[in-house]
Amino acid sequence: MTTHHDDDRPAADASQAAPLSGIPAERKASLLSGRNFWETEALEEAGIAAIAMADGPYGLRHQSGHHDNLALFESDKATCFPPGVAIGSSWDPAMAARLGTALGKEAAAQGVDVVLGPGVNIKRSPLCGRNFEYYSEDPHLSGVLGAAFTRALQAEGPGASVKHFAANNQETNRQTISSDVDERTLREIYLPAFEHIVTEARPATVMASYNKINGVSASENRWLLTEVLRGEWGFEGVVVSDWSAVTDRVAALKAGLDLEMPGGDMGHDEDVLTALRSGEVSESHVDASVARIAALARRKVTSAAAVDYEEHHRIARQIAQECAVLLRNEDQVLPIPGGVHVAVIGAFAEHPRYQGGGSAHVNATRVDRPIDEIRTIAAEVGATVGYTPGFVLDGPRDERLVSDAIAAARSADIAVVFAGLSEQRESEGFDRDTIDLPPAQVELIREVAAAAHRTVVVLANGGIVSLEGWHDDVHAILEGFLLGQGGGHAVADILFGRVNPSGHLAESIPIRLQDHPSWLNFPGEQGHVRYGEGVLVGYRYFSTAGTPVRYPFGHGLSYTTFETRALRVTRKGADSATAEVVVTNTGTRAGKHVVQVYVATEAGPVRRPLRELRGFAKVRLDPGETATVEIDLPRRAFAYWDVRVGRWAVAPGDYRIEVCADANTVLRSSTLTLQGERIATELTMDTPVGAWFEHPGVGSKVMDALGLTGAPITEEQMAMIASMTMRQFIGISGLDVSTDALRSLMAASRPA
Amino acid sequence: MTTHHDDDRPAADASQAAPLSGIPAERKASLLSGRNFWETEALEEAGIAAIAMADGPYGLRHQSGHHDNLALFESDKATCFPPGVAIGSSWDPAMAARLGTALGKEAAAQGVDVVLGPGVNIKRSPLCGRNFEYYSEDPHLSGVLGAAFTRALQAEGPGASVKHFAANNQETNRQTISSDVDERTLREIYLPAFEHIVTEARPATVMASYNKINGVSASENRWLLTEVLRGEWGFEGVVVSDWSAVTDRVAALKAGLDLEMPGGDMGHDEDVLTALRSGEVSESHVDASVARIAALARRKVTSAAAVDYEEHHRIARQIAQECAVLLRNEDQVLPIPGGVHVAVIGAFAEHPRYQGGGSAHVNATRVDRPIDEIRTIAAEVGATVGYTPGFVLDGPRDERLVSDAIAAARSADIAVVFAGLSEQRESEGFDRDTIDLPPAQVELIREVAAAAHRTVVVLANGGIVSLEGWHDDVHAILEGFLLGQGGGHAVADILFGRVNPSGHLAESIPIRLQDHPSWLNFPGEQGHVRYGEGVLVGYRYFSTAGTPVRYPFGHGLSYTTFETRALRVTRKGADSATAEVVVTNTGTRAGKHVVQVYVATEAGPVRRPLRELRGFAKVRLDPGETATVEIDLPRRAFAYWDVRVGRWAVAPGDYRIEVCADANTVLRSSTLTLQGERIATELTMDTPVGAWFEHPGVGSKVMDALGLTGAPITEEQMAMIASMTMRQFIGISGLDVSTDALRSLMAASRPA
Repeated sequence: MTTHHDDDRPAADASQAAPLSGIPAERKASLLSGRNFWETEALEEAGIAAIAMADGPYGLRHQSGHHDNLALFESDKATCFPPGVAIGSSWDPAMAARLGTALGKEAAAQGVDVVLGPGVNIKRSPLCGRNFEYYSEDPHLSGVLGAAFTRALQAEGPGASVKHFAANNQETNRQTISSDVDERTLREIYLPAFEHIVTEARPATVMASYNKINGVSASENRWLLTEVLRGEWGFEGVVVSDWSAVTDRVAALKAGLDLEMPGGDMGHDEDVLTALRSGEVSESHVDASVARIAALARRKVTSAAAVDYEEHHRIARQIAQECAVLLRNEDQVLPIPGGVHVAVIGAFAEHPRYQGGGSAHVNATRVDRPIDEIRTIAAEVGATVGYTPGFVLDGPRDERLVSDAIAAARSADIAVVFAGLSEQRESEGFDRDTIDLPPAQVELIREVAAAAHRTVVVLANGGIVSLEGWHDDVHAILEGFLLGQGGGHAVADILFGRVNPSGHLAESIPIRLQDHPSWLNFPGEQGHVRYGEGVLVGYRYFSTAGTPVRYPFGHGLSYTTFETRALRVTRKGADSATAEVVVTNTGTRAGKHVVQVYVATEAGPVRRPLRELRGFAKVRLDPGETATVEIDLPRRAFAYWDVRVGRWAVAPGDYRIEVCADANTVLRSSTLTLQGERIATELTMDTPVGAWFEHPGVGSKVMDALGLTGAPITEEQMAMIASMTMRQFIGISGLDVSTDALRSLMAASRPA
Repeated sequence: MTTHHDDDRPAADASQAAPLSGIPAERKASLLSGRNFWETEALEEAGIAAIAMADGPYGLRHQSGHHDNLALFESDKATCFPPGVAIGSSWDPAMAARLGTALGKEAAAQGVDVVLGPGVNIKRSPLCGRNFEYYSEDPHLSGVLGAAFTRALQAEGPGASVKHFAANNQETNRQTISSDVDERTLREIYLPAFEHIVTEARPATVMASYNKINGVSASENRWLLTEVLRGEWGFEGVVVSDWSAVTDRVAALKAGLDLEMPGGDMGHDEDVLTALRSGEVSESHVDASVARIAALARRKVTSAAAVDYEEHHRIARQIAQECAVLLRNEDQVLPIPGGVHVAVIGAFAEHPRYQGGGSAHVNATRVDRPIDEIRTIAAEVGATVGYTPGFVLDGPRDERLVSDAIAAARSADIAVVFAGLSEQRESEGFDRDTIDLPPAQVELIREVAAAAHRTVVVLANGGIVSLEGWHDDVHAILEGFLLGQGGGHAVADILFGRVNPSGHLAESIPIRLQDHPSWLNFPGEQGHVRYGEGVLVGYRYFSTAGTPVRYPFGHGLSYTTFETRALRVTRKGADSATAEVVVTNTGTRAGKHVVQVYVATEAGPVRRPLRELRGFAKVRLDPGETATVEIDLPRRAFAYWDVRVGRWAVAPGDYRIEVCADANTVLRSSTLTLQGERIATELTMDTPVGAWFEHPGVGSKVMDALGLTGAPITEEQMAMIASMTMRQFIGISGLDVSTDALRSLMAASRPA
């Protein structure tokens, strides 16, 4: 359950590079950008090979023909595994790893040395067009899954490219927008997934995103690429630009961006040479980037086994089985029993939506159609199946199709409606402006539900959709999100109970889009998007504000039941702990359960979310089986980012360790008191009096120094006094305070 | 209804100052800070007198004895008029003016030359401890009322001090907090009330607030004090510091802060002299501040009529009558008819809460007690009155008092519960942490309501309180807020129908504090408060998000009914208009009606609130009487602040002019199409393609230049393309675009 360092990383380190000393600057500078759309430059005299890159995070988009970055031209066939949204819903690093391994094998076989994934941006708004590629609204879940993917992928040879670094949480104006976000929010929400992957899985490359962060382009952001990524996290790999993200090559180089992609003739190599000649950039700075690129080049895949694409299709199916989320199952209408008549309704049953658009788009080797898979299983269990499309994708309401669907629903024991969003509605490059399903589909669901004995809705969508207006009309909802090319098979298995669903939401489903904390500030205007909700992203907002959601983060039903008990929290060292909990499958089917461990506290000088996910584990249990699950809670599980001192701090106080069914439902809880540290900042005359009183070193002596000990001061007067600076308080109060006494307290307050 | 320039202002302008040339720098520098807590320095050789200042915005706090800024020491007796929260609820500039006139007379009589008011900060959060001093969550309402107050006050001789400039919207850490707020939000929400008062009423002084704005102290904020206040708004008066706000005197002087208050021995005069000697500050800069202070000094009141404090008490009562807001009146339980038995319950009936704490606190000449006033009227109309306190202020539940209250309620025809917040709960210097009434009062209200035939609640509170948990249990709610020393009389008049209530909410009453847009970011942490809701402050958020409130901004009932019809909007010039509407009193009592005119639009490149108050007028109508009300809608009523070009802009498009009963209830509406202007910014290769297409000058030629005219591009592809910069699009698309064509479009895009 705990992540661990992986020391058998194949990345060579920079010190092994061939000597660069004899090589002219022009030659070295040429390495700093690609030689074409997908390949780096070679430098044969230094033994540096050109390497090939390809999208993407859930399946290879390798274009051996015409190159582009919008998936306008076809790519070579590859397995389309479940996209990030599905992997996120699996809550299972083993699934992320299976995908990584399989993708690594396909990449190696196709001669791809670096795969552009994983995508680990936080789903700040449900409208983000690229949410289908990302895992979650939670940084811990994103980081653990991304690290598992990266480790597994890289173990096959090819390097990963963790993207998009950082605070790239929308498509609208993504190339020019400034994400205006305070540092605590960056550190606690938008950076940790990257940090976890970099420190735990050592990705070969990190991709700098298109957007600006607080006005500075990510590609040119020295704080981000050098101070944080390399300095604090120890990243030794290559920072690569997102495709065409670099505007000022010299500024980017100075900020720490090694490799500009794609290659081009924008004069950027020349700009670097000019900067070298003028001394703006030192040769050693260029050499450092070249050395990192050289180390990357040694990753070049030289031999690879042929891929068994049929086997990979089976893997795609198996992963998909772990990802679908059973949101609702009234009267245990699912799984579908044998012997019934099933009316399958909805064009997606025939033309499944299984992946997203843009650079991640995969030319799938084959695609399972839900209707075929359902018919196959139905035949085996003695059920009968009818199919009617019900609607035309993105078309207006078709009365004939609707009346066919209603008639089919009426005559069936159970109606299964396949609804969702078309690929045209969700893609890289633009955001949605609504979370609603197309109105024609909502009407169809309602009419089918009114006619049918029992109704099940199977959803296919990359970003979450609203369930309002029809949720209560149907018995069951299976949220498939996008399940890749094997999703049709996986959904059929779940519908008929051959697989017990075990996915859980990796993002909240709000009641109204306007309830979402991002609603106030999405997608920004006039070049800026303000991250106004701060750390209260997703469930951190909903649960803290007590704002109702349709389904909370972490929610997911099973065909069996689990009991959670005997939570035991053990302190480990000063500010870390282990949580142990006993889980039993109390139902009659085997199933998988996700233990979700949150930490809840009000400690410290910053506002804490009600609870935050700090650990999780997915366990498989046979009926009646019991397992003890241990979750590691390292110091970071309790820490906040203190902007005053610029580091992680654990505040002294009480911390509830909560084992939850979802972000709103606590099953077991235990309180841990941590010693932590009270941050001591130096006191001055311009420090608020309240901070004087709270100072861990001298606070207890301040009342005396002010001559206020024993004075009859009310709570309200104290609040008023606390807000003034010491200078103001003395000025306004007219107190005759000894300057010497204050001076000696100020001296004593200085950190050693 | 339209505001107009007041040209008979008594302020002398700086050019009339006696020559300063012969006077040593030391002497001049001494003028830049006060000589004591309340007075400025004199400079007799230049004919500059010392002048006296005093709090406050709704009544004088003139301390002829011991001085302080926390109202710890008693001040001289003065009339306590209704505080800002009440004046805001009057929606009547005539009431603000009556208050200003009376206050001006008292100030002159007490030898006060500058009154520290009005306070016009926006009520960003209902928790702000000083909301009782401020008018509204809406800048237009605040500005119109503040200008009326300022004009009237200054017409009596004394100068006003508009405070607290700016973005000082909380008390927590007010001396050190940085209000982090984007410029559009400052311009559209937090500055307009100041701007309106400065440009329309020419206040003698503006007071710089304690807080920082985007990291720069208001006192040292050159952009705020010089570029905006003087440069853009033409302010010619004195910028004075809030008391003890100045830390760095030289930085403040350079920023444009003329007068530091109070005087003190913090070495600041010496700092100025050092800066003069070093050349950091020029003598002409000091002279300019001195000249402004000299002009202010000529305001010194030399003779004043004696004040008739009994007459002023009557004025305080009359103003109060216009301010109370009748929130609810089921079954027309109010007004109380003659001949009934009334049970008056609640300690506030005996010990009224009528003003707030801190620097604004007034030592009232006398205070009307509601119970006395009710008894007087009851005797005249043949009603009988019993009284029981029901609770101990801020005390725990008292069972004996509660059972007395229930017994009294049971035996009465109508129970009137006086509930609210004690002065200890609301004050300058700290913020609330809840909007709930004390639980003991909520319980009492519920128990009384269960026992009584009919129940009326009269509220006394400076900031809004939650009505949840008891609202539906009672028949009527009269929200008195704080009504000053004549409030007891005014409330009795309204309860018995001698006065028809005409107040309207100047702020929203949410259902939950967590629903409020400020909840996400109040009161900030670690030195910063992020104004994360941007322009969506108060009703601008609730109505735009469709988030339910208990009562919306603008709500207020009357004992009569009004009909609004025949809205006629007439264009005036290019981008301004006049709205004319016909209002009839359709009921049987005389009453006052507030015509509220909002503008609603989706025009322009920024997100607009659903609707914004742009004009209002209060009219008195006898039963059956009809009036035509004209509301001026100048260009600014339609404009947004465009940060790209740094000015107000009217976007081309449709604007709905909505006459509303409140921010959620449209009575009449009419659409106006404005020509406006499409802002033309210069195109570069780093401008998003979307902005190329939208460019008013060259947009229509871009498709041709790219060779895309007639190409089969889908809406979604277009969205993806639009988000790229031109450089990126050309790089990624692989299109062979003529650089010359783009270059000529870029040249043509340049503003002339």
